[in-house]
Amino acid sequence: MEKEKIVQAIDILRELDIDLWMVIDRESGLLSDPVMDYVVGDGATWLSFFMFFKNGDKHAIVGNLDIEKFRRSGLFDTVSAYKGSPKVDLLRLLAQHNPAKIAIDYSLDCAAADGLTHGNYLNLLDLLKNSEFAGRLVSAEDVITRIRGRKSGEELRRLKLACQKTLEIYGKVGQVAKPGMTEKGLADWITAEREKMALAAAWEQSSCPAVFSGPQEIGAHSAPTGNILSPGHIFNIDFGVKVEKYCSDLQRTWYILRPGEKEAPAEVQKGFAVLIESIRLAFSGLKPGVTGLDIDQVARDYIVSRGYSEYPHALGHQVGRYAHDGGALLAPAWERYGNLPFIPLEKDQVFTIEPRIYIKDFGVATVEEMVVLTATGAEYLSQPQQELYVIKPS
Amino acid sequence: MEKEKIVQAIDILRELDIDLWMVIDRESGLLSDPVMDYVVGDGATWLSFFMFFKNGDKHAIVGNLDIEKFRRSGLFDTVSAYKGSPKVDLLRLLAQHNPAKIAIDYSLDCAAADGLTHGNYLNLLDLLKNSEFAGRLVSAEDVITRIRGRKSGEELRRLKLACQKTLEIYGKVGQVAKPGMTEKGLADWITAEREKMALAAAWEQSSCPAVFSGPQEIGAHSAPTGNILSPGHIFNIDFGVKVEKYCSDLQRTWYILRPGEKEAPAEVQKGFAVLIESIRLAFSGLKPGVTGLDIDQVARDYIVSRGYSEYPHALGHQVGRYAHDGGALLAPAWERYGNLPFIPLEKDQVFTIEPRIYIKDFGVATVEEMVVLTATGAEYLSQPQQELYVIKPS
Repeated sequence: MEKEKIVQAIDILRELDIDLWMVIDRESGLLSDPVMDYVVGDGATWLSFFMFFKNGDKHAIVGNLDIEKFRRSGLFDTVSAYKGSPKVDLLRLLAQHNPAKIAIDYSLDCAAADGLTHGNYLNLLDLLKNSEFAGRLVSAEDVITRIRGRKSGEELRRLKLACQKTLEIYGKVGQVAKPGMTEKGLADWITAEREKMALAAAWEQSSCPAVFSGPQEIGAHSAPTGNILSPGHIFNIDFGVKVEKYCSDLQRTWYILRPGEKEAPAEVQKGFAVLIESIRLAFSGLKPGVTGLDIDQVARDYIVSRGYSEYPHALGHQVGRYAHDGGALLAPAWERYGNLPFIPLEKDQVFTIEPRIYIKDFGVATVEEMVVLTATGAEYLSQPQQELYVIKPS
Repeated sequence: MEKEKIVQAIDILRELDIDLWMVIDRESGLLSDPVMDYVVGDGATWLSFFMFFKNGDKHAIVGNLDIEKFRRSGLFDTVSAYKGSPKVDLLRLLAQHNPAKIAIDYSLDCAAADGLTHGNYLNLLDLLKNSEFAGRLVSAEDVITRIRGRKSGEELRRLKLACQKTLEIYGKVGQVAKPGMTEKGLADWITAEREKMALAAAWEQSSCPAVFSGPQEIGAHSAPTGNILSPGHIFNIDFGVKVEKYCSDLQRTWYILRPGEKEAPAEVQKGFAVLIESIRLAFSGLKPGVTGLDIDQVARDYIVSRGYSEYPHALGHQVGRYAHDGGALLAPAWERYGNLPFIPLEKDQVFTIEPRIYIKDFGVATVEEMVVLTATGAEYLSQPQQELYVIKPS
């Protein structure tokens, strides 16, 4: 897929009028710029430069023993190898093309576009010192967020399949989850199901799945515990898998009936209905050109207007090869989100929608769907949860 | 093992008179400072600060939904959670301790100590702006290379076991490798053996193992090809496994007898003997206080004095959780190695010794051993290859 992504990258350079995009990496097995996987597809050992020019030229500069694999990849017009320093080759290629704007991979707000280490930034400045190029460096944030954000048909196929596999597992939880089971026990069953499917977890396995059982208000992002699923509790699961590198990230909510109950109590049903309606409202507002700030606001305001606390996080994030894939975010204007809530949304971006509601004395209801933006609106990649799932007391 | 590593880190801060070491990370699943695995042991979602003070205090500042897992880890005296910005907590902890030197994870020469992204460096400067702390930042290179370099008994046990497992597989190659087999075929057999042992590859699987067959001079670091192992060829393998996170990195060389040959030709035997003697000479020189430059020179000069070209790389690197683990290097004073060849070696560091010789018309002989520095010299972690292995023609 690297060739397809490089074509896309060069189109984006033209669109942004950036003359050169330069990915810089070394010892990739230890710490790799996340975009290496998209446009280089293999790791570097010594300080290496992968240069994509607006005119379509593509050049790599790598340490001598790495040359063979980058030649074989066929992605670059030339692969230069150095023994002492990459300086001569770097300055030669820069002088030949004389780029006015050179994008490098750093970003204040977006981790996915922040793959250049500070030491390598200093190395770059040192290599460029006394040249005119040091003053032409700009952030590649817009290049990378577009490469990651704009999904091709093939990328959407993989994301949809990842959703489907996740929902297959969720579909069996109702038969497996029983009062008396621990969060950990249920998580282990999900992990076993995932492994049967030979799929990787979408994020670090210790909290993928995360299983949270009520009745108290609980957090997120932590490992399942020995807490027991009990009648009268809500429990939710946050889980995803990777299909051919692409992630799902979906949440579902269940209620465990108490003896004698035929359905969840009214307050649980009401909270769940508010949650689902907030997702519907956000979904209805999604289309190219709106901002994530607006979409988050719709869901947040609705939940607060119904008497619940606002959720303590963003409404949704993009999804791709990483679950929190970066770029435009469906989020409030909190300082920690920087500029991300203000970026207009684009066609073919994939987002989660994941509000959360605490229902007092029962637990936290969360539902997370995945959607893709179309030319005029959005479509679900997941089959949305419409009804609260209930578990019968044993 | 995080607790043990934090104790070690705080001792090192005292030794270096650094008041505070601050590890900064976000979206760790996407791109993580390699030292997070040593002293934090779990990933962060939002911009997070893990602060280790010379006086032994340990504090974490994380995004609100991450708080639970870092509290549960028990590694930090306090875990502060923020919704908007980490600024208030960060400045409060800095003001309380008033550190004169604050080490952060960037390094020009050492990738393992260069885990801070440039964007997060800029985020840090922004958080510290108008405070006196921005002027107190220094590189944590010496902190990290010491943490990674000084192996405990437990770390040495794992490294030794990783060597042993690798040599077990190498021990069977003589029965499996046959003339007519491809590099790829032999590599696949090694991968299958490794998987039977349920061990991970020590580096990216596409070149772990690397298998290179003569007679031409060939590179390194690239994937095995369809080249056929043939009588009269030398072939070498570069391979390693991970045992409980710790790597081996070992190379071995074989010669395939031609019909009628009882042993390798004299020129092959001579080249191999020079290679082994260069390892012995380097090994004999190893002890705390010498530099990698000196050790590399001994092996390099000996090989050149015997009429062979010098190897186009460093003689050896440290090994730990990563195969090229960083810090002091057994290397010539080439620009690409920066300061690393000049750092005096220390007790309990683990190095490879891996010269290479091209034997004209036969191929490349490489042997790579692993050694640990003792108080007065060095000891092998691997059982060294002394004799050239030969494969009989079928």
